[in-house]
Amino acid sequence: MSTYRAAIIGATGYTGSELVRILLTHPNVEIMTITSESKAGEPFTAVHPQFTGLIDVPLSSMDDLNPDEVDVIFLALPHGVSMSAAEKLADSGKPIVDLSGDFRLKDPATYTEWYKKEHTFTEGYAKAAYGLPEWYADSIKKSDLIANPGCFPTGAILGITPLAKAGLIENDRIVVDSKTGTTGAGAKAKATTHFPDVHDNFKPYGLKKHRHTIEIEQRVETAANQPITVQFTPHLLPIDRGIISTIYARPTTETSQEELYRLYEDAYAKAPFVRLLQQVPDVKNVRGSNYCDIYVDYDERTNNILVVTAIDNLVKGAAGQAVHNMNIRLGLPETTGLDHVPLKP
Amino acid sequence: MSTYRAAIIGATGYTGSELVRILLTHPNVEIMTITSESKAGEPFTAVHPQFTGLIDVPLSSMDDLNPDEVDVIFLALPHGVSMSAAEKLADSGKPIVDLSGDFRLKDPATYTEWYKKEHTFTEGYAKAAYGLPEWYADSIKKSDLIANPGCFPTGAILGITPLAKAGLIENDRIVVDSKTGTTGAGAKAKATTHFPDVHDNFKPYGLKKHRHTIEIEQRVETAANQPITVQFTPHLLPIDRGIISTIYARPTTETSQEELYRLYEDAYAKAPFVRLLQQVPDVKNVRGSNYCDIYVDYDERTNNILVVTAIDNLVKGAAGQAVHNMNIRLGLPETTGLDHVPLKP
Amino acid sequence: MSTYRAAIIGATGYTGSELVRILLTHPNVEIMTITSESKAGEPFTAVHPQFTGLIDVPLSSMDDLNPDEVDVIFLALPHGVSMSAAEKLADSGKPIVDLSGDFRLKDPATYTEWYKKEHTFTEGYAKAAYGLPEWYADSIKKSDLIANPGCFPTGAILGITPLAKAGLIENDRIVVDSKTGTTGAGAKAKATTHFPDVHDNFKPYGLKKHRHTIEIEQRVETAANQPITVQFTPHLLPIDRGIISTIYARPTTETSQEELYRLYEDAYAKAPFVRLLQQVPDVKNVRGSNYCDIYVDYDERTNNILVVTAIDNLVKGAAGQAVHNMNIRLGLPETTGLDHVPLKP
Amino acid sequence: MSTYRAAIIGATGYTGSELVRILLTHPNVEIMTITSESKAGEPFTAVHPQFTGLIDVPLSSMDDLNPDEVDVIFLALPHGVSMSAAEKLADSGKPIVDLSGDFRLKDPATYTEWYKKEHTFTEGYAKAAYGLPEWYADSIKKSDLIANPGCFPTGAILGITPLAKAGLIENDRIVVDSKTGTTGAGAKAKATTHFPDVHDNFKPYGLKKHRHTIEIEQRVETAANQPITVQFTPHLLPIDRGIISTIYARPTTETSQEELYRLYEDAYAKAPFVRLLQQVPDVKNVRGSNYCDIYVDYDERTNNILVVTAIDNLVKGAAGQAVHNMNIRLGLPETTGLDHVPLKP
Repeated sequence: MSTYRAAIIGATGYTGSELVRILLTHPNVEIMTITSESKAGEPFTAVHPQFTGLIDVPLSSMDDLNPDEVDVIFLALPHGVSMSAAEKLADSGKPIVDLSGDFRLKDPATYTEWYKKEHTFTEGYAKAAYGLPEWYADSIKKSDLIANPGCFPTGAILGITPLAKAGLIENDRIVVDSKTGTTGAGAKAKATTHFPDVHDNFKPYGLKKHRHTIEIEQRVETAANQPITVQFTPHLLPIDRGIISTIYARPTTETSQEELYRLYEDAYAKAPFVRLLQQVPDVKNVRGSNYCDIYVDYDERTNNILVVTAIDNLVKGAAGQAVHNMNIRLGLPETTGLDHVPLKP
Repeated sequence: MSTYRAAIIGATGYTGSELVRILLTHPNVEIMTITSESKAGEPFTAVHPQFTGLIDVPLSSMDDLNPDEVDVIFLALPHGVSMSAAEKLADSGKPIVDLSGDFRLKDPATYTEWYKKEHTFTEGYAKAAYGLPEWYADSIKKSDLIANPGCFPTGAILGITPLAKAGLIENDRIVVDSKTGTTGAGAKAKATTHFPDVHDNFKPYGLKKHRHTIEIEQRVETAANQPITVQFTPHLLPIDRGIISTIYARPTTETSQEELYRLYEDAYAKAPFVRLLQQVPDVKNVRGSNYCDIYVDYDERTNNILVVTAIDNLVKGAAGQAVHNMNIRLGLPETTGLDHVPLKP
Repeated sequence: MSTYRAAIIGATGYTGSELVRILLTHPNVEIMTITSESKAGEPFTAVHPQFTGLIDVPLSSMDDLNPDEVDVIFLALPHGVSMSAAEKLADSGKPIVDLSGDFRLKDPATYTEWYKKEHTFTEGYAKAAYGLPEWYADSIKKSDLIANPGCFPTGAILGITPLAKAGLIENDRIVVDSKTGTTGAGAKAKATTHFPDVHDNFKPYGLKKHRHTIEIEQRVETAANQPITVQFTPHLLPIDRGIISTIYARPTTETSQEELYRLYEDAYAKAPFVRLLQQVPDVKNVRGSNYCDIYVDYDERTNNILVVTAIDNLVKGAAGQAVHNMNIRLGLPETTGLDHVPLKP
Repeated sequence: MSTYRAAIIGATGYTGSELVRILLTHPNVEIMTITSESKAGEPFTAVHPQFTGLIDVPLSSMDDLNPDEVDVIFLALPHGVSMSAAEKLADSGKPIVDLSGDFRLKDPATYTEWYKKEHTFTEGYAKAAYGLPEWYADSIKKSDLIANPGCFPTGAILGITPLAKAGLIENDRIVVDSKTGTTGAGAKAKATTHFPDVHDNFKPYGLKKHRHTIEIEQRVETAANQPITVQFTPHLLPIDRGIISTIYARPTTETSQEELYRLYEDAYAKAPFVRLLQQVPDVKNVRGSNYCDIYVDYDERTNNILVVTAIDNLVKGAAGQAVHNMNIRLGLPETTGLDHVPLKP
């Protein structure tokens, strides 16, 4: 059984610590290096005390990383910062899984439009693969720069793609109403995640202009092979982890729940992390695991298709999917090290 | 300053206790009678200990109520039970505010279709007024049987009516994605409100067939003066109180956020409990108060109108609105006894 | 009915907004001035949107305050800052209720020891009254500088004082194990109140050295008229408001629950905001109200006295108690404007 | 690598589902049988949908269990019921780990006193081992009936034993103030776990008479080798999992934090699931894992020893400890299948 040495670049945040949680028990991976520019020199467990006794790799600076000593690199950095790191490490030839938003969109111009930032490693775009294994495994296998999807897009795209691919839905009537846990906002304390403002509270945010809108649209367009608009509205739930996306679409032809269920069954027959349910999903059923639970329904009264998807934003929406991508890229069985049973209750 | 004697029928639930909370400090009301069939004889504070020291009215049986000794009657009973009580008390001539679902729909046949139950007091329908004060004050004033709206319909109808009334939206493209706190499910422990199943969790429920769907549709149709369908999906939030409804609609003509804002400003200029906001609402901003906060927006990219409304389901969605209806019916100033400042944080 | 003009100094925090919530409906008070150095010029509702439509006093700088135009001043400032403001305003002769920790302890030297800060207005100490109305009403009535108690001390002192005053407990065996909601940590986002770190979590903090320890000890010593130590341990609850203090003490003589209950009954017979319960309190029973709920018990098996107290830390533990102090100082009935019914659920 | 076949008796509750979660990835265990009298015939995943796709063992009746076909039996039954099952299965000679309270106390008479129930399998008591591996491994190894400790006792006994064993604490001054998540109350909906009553709330319960009191006392007495009383007060936290016990004790001799720390270090040097911390624990640091985090401190000012322990009540406080006991009994390495990294945030 071969062992791959992994580097995690930027491990003070939640995607970083979640990568450590997953890779620690991955049978083919050894965590060689964990970096943090702000905490270099401190033990990893000083930042993430839940790992006390489990790992004693100290935090180092990315500058000290020798790419020759690792086999795979995870970038768990903020967008903007990540593209520089990717550029620096590109020559090493080591496969990189980037968890930021820097390489997810189809071209640098769109990136600049939605992220309000120039892209400084446009060369990377050409090589980057979109890391949604259920639909892009072929390009993931061959790429040295895998753009791990955004958390909202993961659940939304998995929910819409079978419909879009089958040409079954009108192209200007898709509504994605998503609700996310607070870990999506990151590990750093800020006003938007101040406990008394979030607890026992609920609200939408980022109406009309959230960056994940364009990421969803681009991938749905690819599936549909025609221009599509998506109305995407995220909301902040007073929970830790998990995203529910409630998706509304209008069929182009007559349909039924049975027909739709079969469509999804076919679409995800070989996808080990998609679970097609007979009842609505909830986020606790996937907590801590790499599953995406999907339910599809049809309302005859209103002639609308309803799709509900649930993921853990830190696992299937980030670190778990990143490890899934790594497995594919390294030729390991897809599910290796990802057998986490959902933690419920 | 005149004083009206109130009876609250069925006070072991949340709408009952919330009525007591509000009426206790209402300057024109004296709580005369509080009934509970299951707890008759016990002190009200045995069931609701938060009122210790505040009220010493014992719980009695409804059979002991002499309608001549009260001036207004609130029915806080389950649907099905409420229609019998309403029938019994109808002859008294005392104004009744019914908080159940028994008289909200337009006719007994539709009631039977959605509530799966025969209506046994069809005569009541003819007399019942729909108790949404912002749009039905004229009939509320004259009615002796006021059907207090459902919690979801309150926020949804207030959010859609200005658009529908102006003929501004397509009639088959309305999506109402609502998220409610758990008190909407009542005071009785049940599997759906077991703490470990709700806490740190989130999910939709009642897809396609929730009873509030038809209530919303009927009132929106009245406003639009044409047939309309509404896709309504409720979700259960791990919070106590509050409903956010995120509403999507497609305009029939060119529009803009400014134009829409003015439309709502006009519609609610004289509505003391509607607050039109410049930013998205959250449920904590209305907690414990009778406000409905509304935000309206237009997405030029997708050509969709977005409306977000927030209410406290136990106040504006139940007991507060009931007292508002009582004020109107008794000729008191609308806001009397309803000056609760939202409890935040 | 006379009206008093109030100034609230420092209103961006929770005690400030809670003062506004309470004073807005106080029949004898008009809010004249609300200050904030960081937000001067902005509307108060920009910082606290829940007040939209309820108040349009703009935030001003404290420097613009003319004490002659107000009748009572509330200082809702951080400790250290508050003593300077108190000094500045002392000459005005207007009664000041200070909600900080700057004048709660018995002398400047102890203040310096526990707050790690020199006291710059030692003259104030001589004049300051300890603002716990149940036990210090006489001095509150006469003082122009009322030191509103800390939140933990309020519940702890009310819980222990009857025992201490009666000479009923050993002086080195008192344990106060307290659990508080997060609003006690203030309105400003910080790592300790980051949602994912607090939600679904629980822990003690400030072991052995929390400043409220000495405040509790000093007042219990006054009651007992002998030296006393208190082991005080606060814990952070994943809730908004509320403090439960579980208090353990060893009796010096034989006792029983009945005897203890009568002792408390006598002690608080005239205290309108203390509710002596027959069962254990919970924080929701006092949420949003000025009550302190108390339960006392005796364990024959272990020979320990158990006292449990519950308050809303922002009301009885801060703004409500401050208004209570104002009422006493201004000669108004104690409960004026403080008839908030607990918001439960 | 040998494989042991396991039966889980009573799997509709949380300890049952948690056993399945843990055993599913245990390298030496195959789950052969899962029983439920109320749901026999249904798939396990119908009751616990988070396991969809992970296990397809149907629920059966205990009567259908052939003990010859399994190697180890877990009883996840209510107390009272469990003793009958244990009696029935005792002759099989297969090792039984009982997660109920039926065999935890030292003798049937004490059981009857605290559990208000006759014990019907008193013969079992003689053979039962107390399943706290850190202190009772020797008897666990040899016993065919292992009484898995209560959740509160696990954290309390681990926290007090080093002090008691060293004869370092007075025998009538121990206070254990514990706070638990709601899963301790079981999977069945009841009034005490109704979401709106628990959420944003907090309170003590079971004062003076909780059954875990005597379990703690008996084991602390064993360690101290003298009679001891413990004042134990549990409180209900609005969280899913986790218990924090804050323990207060009075030293019999001079001591210091350093000395105490060394005492605990020695006591738990070989205990793989006890983590001795340099700072206070929190429950999220152990969530989903089998760790017990311990912090010990000494307050010179008050001459009190403070110990804080944290466990996940469903893992170290139930199913994890049960598997640990199984490992010991079967001669497997202690930590086999128990490498769950805490799920934080």
